[in-house]
Amino acid sequence: MQADEFRAHGHRLIEWIIDYHSRVESLPVESTVAPGEIAALLPEHPGEPDGFEALFADLDRVVVPGLTNWQHPGFFAWFPANTTYPAILAELVSAGLGVQGMSWATSPAVTEVETRMMDWMIDLLGLPDAFRSTSEAGGGVIQGSASEATLTSILAARWRATEGAVNIDSDTTRLVAYATSQAHSSVEKGLRIAGIGTDHLRVVPHDENFAMRPDALADLIAADRAAGLVPFWVCATVGTTNSLAIDPVRAVAEVARAEGVWLHVDAAMAGIATLCPELRWLNEGVELADSYGTNPHKWMGITFDCNLFYTADRISLLGALSILPEYLRTAAAEAGAVIDYRDWQVPLGRRFRALKLWFTLRTDGVAPAQAMIRDHVAWTQQLAEWVADDDRFEVLAPHPLNLLCLALRDGDEATAALISAANATGQVLFTRTVLDGRVVLRFSIGARTTRMADVRDGWALLQRLAS
Amino acid sequence: MQADEFRAHGHRLIEWIIDYHSRVESLPVESTVAPGEIAALLPEHPGEPDGFEALFADLDRVVVPGLTNWQHPGFFAWFPANTTYPAILAELVSAGLGVQGMSWATSPAVTEVETRMMDWMIDLLGLPDAFRSTSEAGGGVIQGSASEATLTSILAARWRATEGAVNIDSDTTRLVAYATSQAHSSVEKGLRIAGIGTDHLRVVPHDENFAMRPDALADLIAADRAAGLVPFWVCATVGTTNSLAIDPVRAVAEVARAEGVWLHVDAAMAGIATLCPELRWLNEGVELADSYGTNPHKWMGITFDCNLFYTADRISLLGALSILPEYLRTAAAEAGAVIDYRDWQVPLGRRFRALKLWFTLRTDGVAPAQAMIRDHVAWTQQLAEWVADDDRFEVLAPHPLNLLCLALRDGDEATAALISAANATGQVLFTRTVLDGRVVLRFSIGARTTRMADVRDGWALLQRLAS
Repeated sequence: MQADEFRAHGHRLIEWIIDYHSRVESLPVESTVAPGEIAALLPEHPGEPDGFEALFADLDRVVVPGLTNWQHPGFFAWFPANTTYPAILAELVSAGLGVQGMSWATSPAVTEVETRMMDWMIDLLGLPDAFRSTSEAGGGVIQGSASEATLTSILAARWRATEGAVNIDSDTTRLVAYATSQAHSSVEKGLRIAGIGTDHLRVVPHDENFAMRPDALADLIAADRAAGLVPFWVCATVGTTNSLAIDPVRAVAEVARAEGVWLHVDAAMAGIATLCPELRWLNEGVELADSYGTNPHKWMGITFDCNLFYTADRISLLGALSILPEYLRTAAAEAGAVIDYRDWQVPLGRRFRALKLWFTLRTDGVAPAQAMIRDHVAWTQQLAEWVADDDRFEVLAPHPLNLLCLALRDGDEATAALISAANATGQVLFTRTVLDGRVVLRFSIGARTTRMADVRDGWALLQRLAS
Repeated sequence: MQADEFRAHGHRLIEWIIDYHSRVESLPVESTVAPGEIAALLPEHPGEPDGFEALFADLDRVVVPGLTNWQHPGFFAWFPANTTYPAILAELVSAGLGVQGMSWATSPAVTEVETRMMDWMIDLLGLPDAFRSTSEAGGGVIQGSASEATLTSILAARWRATEGAVNIDSDTTRLVAYATSQAHSSVEKGLRIAGIGTDHLRVVPHDENFAMRPDALADLIAADRAAGLVPFWVCATVGTTNSLAIDPVRAVAEVARAEGVWLHVDAAMAGIATLCPELRWLNEGVELADSYGTNPHKWMGITFDCNLFYTADRISLLGALSILPEYLRTAAAEAGAVIDYRDWQVPLGRRFRALKLWFTLRTDGVAPAQAMIRDHVAWTQQLAEWVADDDRFEVLAPHPLNLLCLALRDGDEATAALISAANATGQVLFTRTVLDGRVVLRFSIGARTTRMADVRDGWALLQRLAS
């Protein structure tokens, strides 16, 4: 493809993206295709290239019918993954430059813009200074996902608990980790990847609000110590996937500190809410954490993938993940004057993801995200009032933020049927979960395009279908 | 940012990207900035947004001086990371849609286009049918990097070797892995992540061509078995980073099969050369591998990130990585009719990366990549002849593909000084490595923009500076 074709096609695709966003509301939220239906529209084997016009037509013929539309105003499913124009432009530039950020030397701007953005976000989220790049022992890095951040935290904690021996000695059979049943699946997955089976993951009991009980954590740790085991990592969640439950980070941190256990705070969904100063109570106790992660790619509009991962103990992180083969040695790194972010993550290669934050903060700034977050929280409270007024429904968990967990009093089958019926309209998409044995409809208000009217319509639809 | 602004800015950025590519040759290959110089151009704290014009100006003021230009025709460093117009457009569309591919249900098109592309690439690379999505036990997935592919392979192998016990039982202290000293650093890193220290990574001796000695592998495995250990994973490399050495996959596979050890083939760099049928000898024995990875984001022009990871044993892969919390259950997955790619990788979230392959194969097709690969291989042979004619230099490794490992006979200091002097011109970028104790200048001919004249000029520069 030559430059003039790239220009022409690029302009058409920009128009196509604008058009997609303008009509996304008219599409069903959830794709209605059956398994295999999209694949059947593509040849089984690659043929000769058939050109941009055919490809362009296939965006509407093949791709769009196969999309579950995360940018739809009726998207109340899972968690949001908002994309916004400044971040899309940044992804275009990142792809256009085609540079690597694995080491400082492979493109200094990738590293240094990222370090600045990580520090800027500390200001914008009110996070502790111990996470700054300029702090004695801390720092931050963009990871692709909260799953990777959680795994990275486990690896740093394991290195610290074994005083580095883990890199050489394969015996880590005494290590034990802690989280509630409400923690994200990436906690079990990350531990499993690290070679720590479920026999060494303690499920810490939660209270009636689905939040961790610090006393129970202390008891479990004491029992493990008595058994000769080594408690090494605890995950506190700020905004669980099930119900946005918030573990008491300060109380958990006090237990963890007293026991020398690494505390990771998984604030993947809710942490970004602290863009609003009045929601900074969510950061309570975070200054005692060893590591912390939140996802601008969820609620903030920084197109996936963009997780902010901070640690107050970069020595352990680097101890766990740095490897320096001859072919990656550089003079700048040898001098210790630079950051090589490859040593802060699992993969070697790195995209120029900091551009997404930089483009957004310099064009839109944080005001649109703040306004959206405030709206979503307020609408959730309004929705909760409506639900409370309808005897057929009940609310099953606290809802200080933007997720309401509902169920029909008629029981699990009725709730599950309601979710299916609502989603089948194509106007909304809700996902289910289970809270203490009850099937729950998660009403997650997080899409950037959602208006108050969409929340009202969604609720009206549920009421109608429940009849 | 509103749609009309997105349109206007998007058009300017497309022009800017075209302009960057047209002038990249006039820039120094390696950024000349000192550590901290780019960061100093940005405020320490975020201010109010200053708008697109200021940001746009900063692309040239802040970003470009801080780039090491991987698309420069004089880029002979590390391995290539070619970006091309069709793939850039695909990244634009992927960001524009903002959909998730973690599960089939979260956007069926993301999964089904990816599955088709993985199967198409089997045709195009001449890979075994055991890797096809339609095979009894195999399949493929796009990973972000070869590091992740290697880690994924280790995890699947560990699951199989422990008959799944690893997910529950934290004792994996008997497992042993095998690779040569020439294997990529991600092998040691991946094992370390999986909790397998260097005490259980056996360095298999290599021959004079830096290729694994299968007899030595067999001896090591036998010794470990005799010691009551469990050999579980061997990595054969097709194109090492140091010298593009090629392990004898068939002979290694025969040892591995006889011993029930998982064989991973890391063909990150060289595998993609099999787009050219005359280079399919690189696939010799791959049909005996349990997993295989290659990177279209290196030599093919599929903008980073795009690793093709195939396995012939998806049961073990899914056993190792699948976790199904209530909030991720979907009807389609329960019915077993679909692929949920989140269970094929470490992260949960997934970008729509298959678009990069689809856009490229339908517009440019593979002919440009084939022609480029053939040129690069031919030019490397020509370069080797020139080097052979200059008594001051010697070639230190076989060079059947596109990497020539040179050194000055004067010794390591002279070679290191030559690399520094050449790079300081800004016209070229070479990286160093060490082969059996000798410092080496790696002359890697892989950038899409490189012409024969650039290779000739690069060699002339080395000859001049060596005087």
